[in-house]
Amino acid sequence: MSQIKKVNHIAIVVENIENALEFWQGQLGLTLDHIEDVPSQASKVAFLPVGEGEVELVEPTDPESGLAKYLEKRGEGMHHLCFQVDDIEAMLDLLKEKDVRLINESPVDLPGRRMAFIHPKAANGVLIELYEIIE
Amino acid sequence: MSQIKKVNHIAIVVENIENALEFWQGQLGLTLDHIEDVPSQASKVAFLPVGEGEVELVEPTDPESGLAKYLEKRGEGMHHLCFQVDDIEAMLDLLKEKDVRLINESPVDLPGRRMAFIHPKAANGVLIELYEIIE
Repeated sequence: MSQIKKVNHIAIVVENIENALEFWQGQLGLTLDHIEDVPSQASKVAFLPVGEGEVELVEPTDPESGLAKYLEKRGEGMHHLCFQVDDIEAMLDLLKEKDVRLINESPVDLPGRRMAFIHPKAANGVLIELYEIIE
Repeated sequence: MSQIKKVNHIAIVVENIENALEFWQGQLGLTLDHIEDVPSQASKVAFLPVGEGEVELVEPTDPESGLAKYLEKRGEGMHHLCFQVDDIEAMLDLLKEKDVRLINESPVDLPGRRMAFIHPKAANGVLIELYEIIE
């Protein structure tokens, strides 16, 4: 029985959100819900709902951040995949039991959600974020 | 009004599906629906349903294919993002009207679906697949 309920979002790292919206909103036709500054992640994020999840366009706001360095090295593209779980502590315990390499051993609390990253070396090069939504 | 209904799947290119399943199925806990040979795409694909969509693990079966070369150059990781539309011809017409660079100008017919790729240069480095499901 999977703990994972759905894909919460796919995050795409971009140089500039306004420019990127010309494609994602203007050409592809997705709806922009809102743009948010996320200082704790050194980024600005555009949220575009699709079905039960979202596409997130993420622009680094600090050139020294890991995200900015990733962008510089790899270029624009998909950055991480976020799965929503009901109980992030239980999920992290399960992964730790199975010796899965984690970036966050404990959940990070953000407004409205708790999150943790699995290390991409554990997941075929995919940076996986886990989200528990706090109602 | 968006033509895009949902994320159909996120495709992850891997060296070896059996090894990759140790994480995605054995550790992360996703359910494996089935594994399919897709000779037209020179690949073998594992389908793991998540919510209303799927994670697909894609292993190249021909070392000369574009996918195998992508894997060699970039390593394992997210390869493409597939959005489901109701009418792929209408969607492609709309994108052509807006001068969006496409890999497939017309839909490619596969069993159960019609598909086309948007060029990653049009989409902030993301290879986007469009799917129309044929019932």
